[in-house]
Formats: sequence, C-alpha cells, structure tokens
Amino acid sequence: MIVVKRLADMGERTAIQRITKLLTRGKGAQEIGDDCAILAFDDNYLLVTTDMITRSTHIPSKMTARQIGWFLVAINLSDIAAKGGTPLGLVLSYGLPKETPEDFLVELVKGADSCAVQYDTTILGGDTKEAQDLTLCGTALGIVPQKEFMPRRGATPGDVVAVTGSLGKAGAGYRALQQNIQDEKIQKGLLLALPRIKEGRILARSQCVTSCMDLSDGLSSSLYQLQELNKVGFEISSNALPIAPELLILQQKDPTLDKQALLLHFGGDYELLLTLPPENFRSVQHALEQSGSSLTTIGTVTTSNDVLLLEKGKKRILENKGYEHFKPWMFG
Amino acid sequence: MIVVKRLADMGERTAIQRITKLLTRGKGAQEIGDDCAILAFDDNYLLVTTDMITRSTHIPSKMTARQIGWFLVAINLSDIAAKGGTPLGLVLSYGLPKETPEDFLVELVKGADSCAVQYDTTILGGDTKEAQDLTLCGTALGIVPQKEFMPRRGATPGDVVAVTGSLGKAGAGYRALQQNIQDEKIQKGLLLALPRIKEGRILARSQCVTSCMDLSDGLSSSLYQLQELNKVGFEISSNALPIAPELLILQQKDPTLDKQALLLHFGGDYELLLTLPPENFRSVQHALEQSGSSLTTIGTVTTSNDVLLLEKGKKRILENKGYEHFKPWMFG
Repeated sequence: MIVVKRLADMGERTAIQRITKLLTRGKGAQEIGDDCAILAFDDNYLLVTTDMITRSTHIPSKMTARQIGWFLVAINLSDIAAKGGTPLGLVLSYGLPKETPEDFLVELVKGADSCAVQYDTTILGGDTKEAQDLTLCGTALGIVPQKEFMPRRGATPGDVVAVTGSLGKAGAGYRALQQNIQDEKIQKGLLLALPRIKEGRILARSQCVTSCMDLSDGLSSSLYQLQELNKVGFEISSNALPIAPELLILQQKDPTLDKQALLLHFGGDYELLLTLPPENFRSVQHALEQSGSSLTTIGTVTTSNDVLLLEKGKKRILENKGYEHFKPWMFG
Repeated sequence: MIVVKRLADMGERTAIQRITKLLTRGKGAQEIGDDCAILAFDDNYLLVTTDMITRSTHIPSKMTARQIGWFLVAINLSDIAAKGGTPLGLVLSYGLPKETPEDFLVELVKGADSCAVQYDTTILGGDTKEAQDLTLCGTALGIVPQKEFMPRRGATPGDVVAVTGSLGKAGAGYRALQQNIQDEKIQKGLLLALPRIKEGRILARSQCVTSCMDLSDGLSSSLYQLQELNKVGFEISSNALPIAPELLILQQKDPTLDKQALLLHFGGDYELLLTLPPENFRSVQHALEQSGSSLTTIGTVTTSNDVLLLEKGKKRILENKGYEHFKPWMFG
C-alpha cells in the first residue's frame, strides 16, 4: 500500500517547515518562520508579511463585507506590529466569485481602506481576480530600525513572559455569535481585530524585548511555537492571565462557558506575546501605560523545555491546542 | 426591479477602477493602476506587486505542480521587469485543499524556488492556508533607481511602440495543449513563462523609455490600457509583429490555426511592451541585442485616441479582446 501524506495529516506548521527546507536561501535571505520576512535596508529592516484568508475556512460567517476588509488589513498589520514596525503600506488581492455583487466589493474595499487609514497607512495597490470561493490575500510592508527589531528567536531563561492588553476577546466574540447573544461590544472582540502597532513601536523602542509574536494563533499555540524555536520552557501562571472584560460579562450571561479554554487556546486575539529581562519590565510597562495601553506578566522563561501552567498551586503541562489550519479547529 | 450589478457584468478593470476611487491616498501613495505599486526610498523606488491565481480560473489544467510554482513566481517577477526593477525577493501564499498530497506541495515549492533562483532572487517567506480551490498569491518586491523607473503613463505622440522578444508563444502553447499536439517546446510557450528582468533593466538604464508594461493580458488589451491611461492613440503595423517561431511551426501542423488572433489577443506572453522616442530606438535595440535579446518596432504613438491596425495597406480599428477576469476568455 502506498501511503500518500496529505496536508490534512501534516498540519500547517509541519507543511511550512517542509517548505522552508526546500528553499534556496539567496542573498539577503533571513530565517523563515518569523511573523515577517525581513530585508536589510541601510540601518533598517524592511518587513514583509502576507496572509491569505478564504470564506469557507477563515472568515467568521457573521462578518459583514466591511468587517472582512478591515480584518484582511488588520491581520497583516498585526505581524508588522509584532516586529516593532511602522507600516509602509499594503497590497491586497481580492479573489471574488463571479456572482459577487458590486456592493459587496465596495464595502470590502471601504473596510480595508478604513483600517489602513486608522493605522496611518495606505492601500498601495493590488489585484482582483475571479475565484470560486471568496479568497483574500494581503501583503503588508513595514519598516523598523535594525536595532529595534523584535525577533521570535531570543527568549532567554529568566526572562519574564508578558502580554499586551487582555485575552479572550476573540473567544468571547465567537461564543456570543455562536450562542446568538446580541451584544455588539462582545461580538466585536472577534469581528474587529485591533493590531497593536502603537504598542509594538513602544516595545521596540525599549530595545529590551528578547522575543515577540502576535497571539493570532492563541496563547498555547504561540507559547509552543516560541518554545520550539528558542529551545526553552515556559511557566505560565493561570491567575496572572489578564482576562478581557468582554469574557467576564459573557460568563455571566452564559454560565456553561469554558472561560479557561478560551483564554488559553482560542486564536484571534491580536495582542502581542513577548519576553524581556525582569529588570526592564517596569519601565516598559510604564511606557505602555503612559500611552493608554497595558502590559501584564503572565510567567517566566525556564530551561526545562516544557510549557507548564501553574494553577491552584499545581503545575501541569499546558496542552497545545490552538488553531491550526488543515486540522480541525477546536470549536468546529 | 432592483438590478444588482455583479462583477461578471463589470469585468476586472472596471472593478479595479471602482476600487481605486474608494481608497484614501495617504502619505507616499502613488497612482494605482501600474504593474507595481511604488514607495520612494532615498533615490530609489521600492516596487511591490501582487498576483493571485486559482486552479479553476487561471491555471492551465496541464500544468504540473512544479510548473505552477514557477508560474506563480514568474508572473510576479514580470511586473517587476516591466518597471525596470531588480527583484529583492518574494513572499508566497499557498491556499491548498485539505486533500492535497504532500508531493504536490513539494513540487510546487521546488518550482517556485527554481524560478526565484533562476532570476537571482529568493522566496523570503509566506503563508500556507487551507482553501477549497488551489489558490496561490505571490507578492514580489523589487528596486529601481527613481530616474530609471518605467511608468505606464508617459507615452507621447511620435514615440515608437516596441516589444521585446516575439509574440504568440503562449497562444501557440495553449493551442498545442488544446489540440493535443505533443511538442514540448511549443507547449512550454504557455507552461514556462520567462519574465524579462534582464531586458527590463537594460531598457530602464537607457532612461529613454516613456511607458512600459508587460504583455500578460495580450497585445490588444495592453495597448488599450496604455491608450486610456495616456490619452493617445496607436497605429500598429500587422507586418511588423515579431512572430514566435513556435507559432510558425505550429501553423504547419495545424493549418486551421488563427495565427493573427493569437498574436493580437492572447494573453500570457511575458514580453515587455514599451514606447520610446524614435531617435533612441537604435541604441536601445543594440543594447538588448548585445545581451542576446531583441527589440522590434511594431508601430507608433498617435494623437488620435484610436488603436488602429495597419494590415494589407488598410487601417482598421484593432478590437480589444484580450483576457479579462470575470468575463469569459476568448478561448473558453
């Protein structure tokens, strides 16, 4: 019997690792597997990131065309934010079914444009093509001084682990939509992604962040990605996780809610996850607070290679079950 | 009755015009509607272009996975070539059906990588996502000194119209595949796109090209795009069109072939179409010939606003019927 390995068996990250090994690394090429690809330009890095979403696999069914357009820009800007970059602009490819109404396209473009404007950047151009399923691909460019670039690789035992903002907004929004709970503010947690460009810049300027990535894949998945790349471990304190107010409000309306699962595993929160030396934490936190944001310590980097969760006085291995493409999402 | 305009009624270019009007043009934003978006960097322009292709609408069914990967990179590099740029790298997004065999992905990546290597550039990174239909999106970056940039807008009455290489290769390849004519060299005209990076650089260095674009949409469609943008006319001499040897060979095997239609309207030839002052033609042609390429005058830029074809001593309006997405392709 010939066993043909399908992508459904591999999962997205194994596929990416496979791809990476096949590539010829030419001049100026840097390590693949970060949120952005980088090209050195004088004292700066040009950041490039691309993200594809399709109606059937990545776009929540309740999203309006305008929200989808915003989302496409926001998820790409989030990768620029995670590297400390300032956005330079985006190109967007719209793959649209033939029967798409013109109004849908207009709303899509307005949504994309308004997100770009909100983050002081611009849609530079793009492509419009016919496709069977609505398929959107965005590429964002950004720039960051080389000495301020925040890589994924660099977490060091003894560093603190921190997150910007709060966790569980996207999960609460997803759950509210799924349970038909009419609360626009909660739903927006999923429908209106807010990339942390300003926060990324403040963190980058501090020049003490040892590793950083966005939380789009969920907390547990992101920690495991950093763990593998950095050959370190993490000890995360369950009590320390900054819970989004939306999730607390939702829990009152929906007592069967598994809050912990949403906090630990649900993707779609566009906060930043980072590590930095403990002695730098206070000053960086202060700088973020001064600008109306927040930074919370959630744990420490260890030498153990395990990702542990400290909960009710006990330590257990944190499961790695965030969203991964080609494999079923935990919430179906 | 409410008439909802669908994209199938608009066509791709009307959709792009509609999109362009909706966008907020921020700092550093240039005109949209060129082969590449541009960002000024010191004395250079950073070029950015993106192209999406899907299995059901843009990928010839006979293409192997390796050829598809090559094609994805080649069509993006062609847009860099048309602006006179040197490629800096690409990011690629692979939208893949769940059941895609691993081997298909491996071949796809090898094809993309080999095209990048052939043109002395690199796949910098990308994204892999689940999609219903095979959907690929590439973004290429390039760089060109500002004074060498070849825009689409700039054609001036009196300029000569010229093309690199020869025309009809892709059409011949398409026809050979359609008619099941087993001739690998002819089929390659469609299956192996060769972006004109070297030619683009030579043209750009001459600093006398007044407008340039690639011929991916076919000759008639490209001329009409330049005509509209430049508010000029064209007079093209049918006799002057440089016919690809593959098309002549095919005609012998397939006497019912409409050679003229393939030359004038078929997309997929990745040659460059350009205008330049007549006094500069010889020296630019010479420079291209020195490097093993060619440049042929096919007509002149006029003040008339018409696109005319001079054939057998008569002038007639050249029909505009190249490939346009959302609208049926002339060859079904």
